[in-house]
Amino acid sequence: MSAKKSIAISGAGLVGSLAAIYLRKRGYDVTVFERRHDMRRSGAEGGRSINLALSNRGIRALEEVGLADELKKVAIPMHGRMMHDKQGKLNSFAYGKEGQFINSVSRSGLNIVLMNEAERIGVQFRFDQRIQKVDFVKTQLFVEGKSGESFDLIIGADGAFSAVRGSFQFTDRFDYEQNYIDHGYKELHIPPGANGSFQLEKNYLHIWPRESFMMIALPNPDGSFTCTLFFPFDGNPSFDVLKTNADVEKFFEETFPDARKLMPTLLEDFNTNPTSSLVTIKCYPWVRNNTLLIGDAAHGIVPFYGQGMNAGFEDCRILNDLLSQHNDNWTTVLPEFQQLRKPDADAIAQLALDNFIEMRDLVADADFLLRKKIEGKLYELFPDKWIPLYPMVTFMDNMRYSDALRTGQKQKLIMDEVMKTPNLENTWQQLNFPAIVNQLTAAS
Amino acid sequence: MSAKKSIAISGAGLVGSLAAIYLRKRGYDVTVFERRHDMRRSGAEGGRSINLALSNRGIRALEEVGLADELKKVAIPMHGRMMHDKQGKLNSFAYGKEGQFINSVSRSGLNIVLMNEAERIGVQFRFDQRIQKVDFVKTQLFVEGKSGESFDLIIGADGAFSAVRGSFQFTDRFDYEQNYIDHGYKELHIPPGANGSFQLEKNYLHIWPRESFMMIALPNPDGSFTCTLFFPFDGNPSFDVLKTNADVEKFFEETFPDARKLMPTLLEDFNTNPTSSLVTIKCYPWVRNNTLLIGDAAHGIVPFYGQGMNAGFEDCRILNDLLSQHNDNWTTVLPEFQQLRKPDADAIAQLALDNFIEMRDLVADADFLLRKKIEGKLYELFPDKWIPLYPMVTFMDNMRYSDALRTGQKQKLIMDEVMKTPNLENTWQQLNFPAIVNQLTAAS
Repeated sequence: MSAKKSIAISGAGLVGSLAAIYLRKRGYDVTVFERRHDMRRSGAEGGRSINLALSNRGIRALEEVGLADELKKVAIPMHGRMMHDKQGKLNSFAYGKEGQFINSVSRSGLNIVLMNEAERIGVQFRFDQRIQKVDFVKTQLFVEGKSGESFDLIIGADGAFSAVRGSFQFTDRFDYEQNYIDHGYKELHIPPGANGSFQLEKNYLHIWPRESFMMIALPNPDGSFTCTLFFPFDGNPSFDVLKTNADVEKFFEETFPDARKLMPTLLEDFNTNPTSSLVTIKCYPWVRNNTLLIGDAAHGIVPFYGQGMNAGFEDCRILNDLLSQHNDNWTTVLPEFQQLRKPDADAIAQLALDNFIEMRDLVADADFLLRKKIEGKLYELFPDKWIPLYPMVTFMDNMRYSDALRTGQKQKLIMDEVMKTPNLENTWQQLNFPAIVNQLTAAS
Repeated sequence: MSAKKSIAISGAGLVGSLAAIYLRKRGYDVTVFERRHDMRRSGAEGGRSINLALSNRGIRALEEVGLADELKKVAIPMHGRMMHDKQGKLNSFAYGKEGQFINSVSRSGLNIVLMNEAERIGVQFRFDQRIQKVDFVKTQLFVEGKSGESFDLIIGADGAFSAVRGSFQFTDRFDYEQNYIDHGYKELHIPPGANGSFQLEKNYLHIWPRESFMMIALPNPDGSFTCTLFFPFDGNPSFDVLKTNADVEKFFEETFPDARKLMPTLLEDFNTNPTSSLVTIKCYPWVRNNTLLIGDAAHGIVPFYGQGMNAGFEDCRILNDLLSQHNDNWTTVLPEFQQLRKPDADAIAQLALDNFIEMRDLVADADFLLRKKIEGKLYELFPDKWIPLYPMVTFMDNMRYSDALRTGQKQKLIMDEVMKTPNLENTWQQLNFPAIVNQLTAAS
């Protein structure tokens, strides 16, 4: 197959727009089809702008397309977790070493930067285009109310409920899973204080861990925080049983008293903002003929590792790398991309599910915090040999998610044994740290 | 909710037709919508009629609706497995105790009996009706080219690629999985011998186990056998590499020499009959408002335990039981049905996948056959306390699939230990059988 000339991308979201930039820079004619209005003209549609955690894997891709500096200016570094207990007592925990942090960024702000850049370099955007189906054999895209349009390549970057993937589902031997967790989420709001000040510590991701559920908050540049309550749909407590304003009021005052004081619009937000569900999506293959799925369309994950966007951006970077390696020979690149990337997509899906339990429950557990402290010490002493799971996933943009998962599993087994040491809380600094690290290298 | 008056069933297949009979007998107005032509008038459409293994769970439901005797007349009992090795050497193994057997029946023959009976008692059938969607709130069924039609209840019994389930997929928090195995299947033919005689032992399910793949054959009333080759799509050997007639010829002569001699139309069959894929489908919930999924539409499984139809018929029986228990209060019955039945559907899905490995590989293994012999002895000595997995699943129609799976797992652990006994092949009859059985009852 010769190099593709024309590429259609479904989805002008974060991943679709970044893919468009990468591919336009390689010289392709790129057209992006978006179901929604142009968010730059009708900002209101998506509702309140929400924030996302941008970390090294995502930043690396933005650096490659020359946008990292612009985005770092509006990003707010978060150096660690700040846990809030029921008495409002705070307990913070760094994500990695000095200088390692994740970034709170506005989803819509980032998306607008990407769309503007894509358009600047010659990508065409077509909005209000509802994709009906793909003809894989003819590489044709069918938009509602129009006849099919032919391209050399079609990329589905249209998210967890991808229309392009819908056509994959009508093909034989397409493995597909969508699995919802028992929790939904609702966004809530902490406004800025006087003169745009931050009412919580600015440079943290705040967590109110409550075992079976949690609330988190990320800072925004205007001094506000966007809170997200992750809460069961059914049972007690749950969204189902918080029926009246009095129920909501009482629940927040008892459960999140310090946050409640900072949420003057709690009841309005709770009643107005939707309760959304959380799904993991897996499928395979990601390629049919000349059509490819990337990002959430190929691997939708729950948000608890803050890696959804980062994984999608990494897809774009890896696809671009393979194109460079193989002189834009898509016949080679497409199968190689899916084979390489599928285990990593499965790994981050698992890590994201596991991390919900860590965030909502374990971070409030003394044993768990001691374990983290010991791992932090190992990381400090042997920064190349014992990198804890969170920094491997979040900061090591050269490490595959699947390798991080595997190494993390080995570390867990070793640490399970270490944690059996009697009186560890008082003696942990006397542990034989080199011997612990040697177990990991021996196991590899 | 009062008792439903009108029920629409999507699918006039085995499960849809049986459900129609059960519900008509309870007094409902039942209309069955079928996408295909009426197979009684255009027999050719479904291609060659294939056979199925009907066993106790299915028979019990047929007994309840008064059709078991009629069907037993045309069923061919299969008392066990007959294994064929590469030299054509035979080795048989009984499925259970004396008098326990499964039955080879014609799918179309059984379906016609069910449709005729349903029509006789007043069920309406509408053929050539392609269902587009269900409106769950209004309990409306939309057939292509027509406006929506309202019912009190809609049942999707339209198989693994259910159109009714398609509408479930557009609802929030619907868990769904479709997973294909690496093997496909192709039907082949052994004709009757002289005067309609059977050219293989009549009363067995024949297996040619070849480790990574297998062929099986079930008897038909006319003296023929329907063979099914379960074979990888890719790799070597696979459907992919058998490209020419010479390839097929050589492969069969080397791999299934005894069968090959009995297959005069091998090449024609191989080239003409489709290569079909094998999928497991799981989803949940099975109920949205007044719409219910049953049979393969709710839980499609691979065919290796011969339980797909039997599980679907058991769905009908259990639904009918619950309706009797709860005075046809569907508001109670629908959620209870899905909660009760989902773990059993998951269990038989797992058992069916596991049994492929047993059939294609383990049944040719001496250790495995010794294990089966010992379990057979335990069953003989303690018929109420140690029922091997196969008879639990196949013959114990009062035992839930999930209980059979769980008990089978316990038995496996116990037998794993027994199998470590030195020189077991010569000494197994001296085992302390009561002690083995006591381990199982103690574990329960």
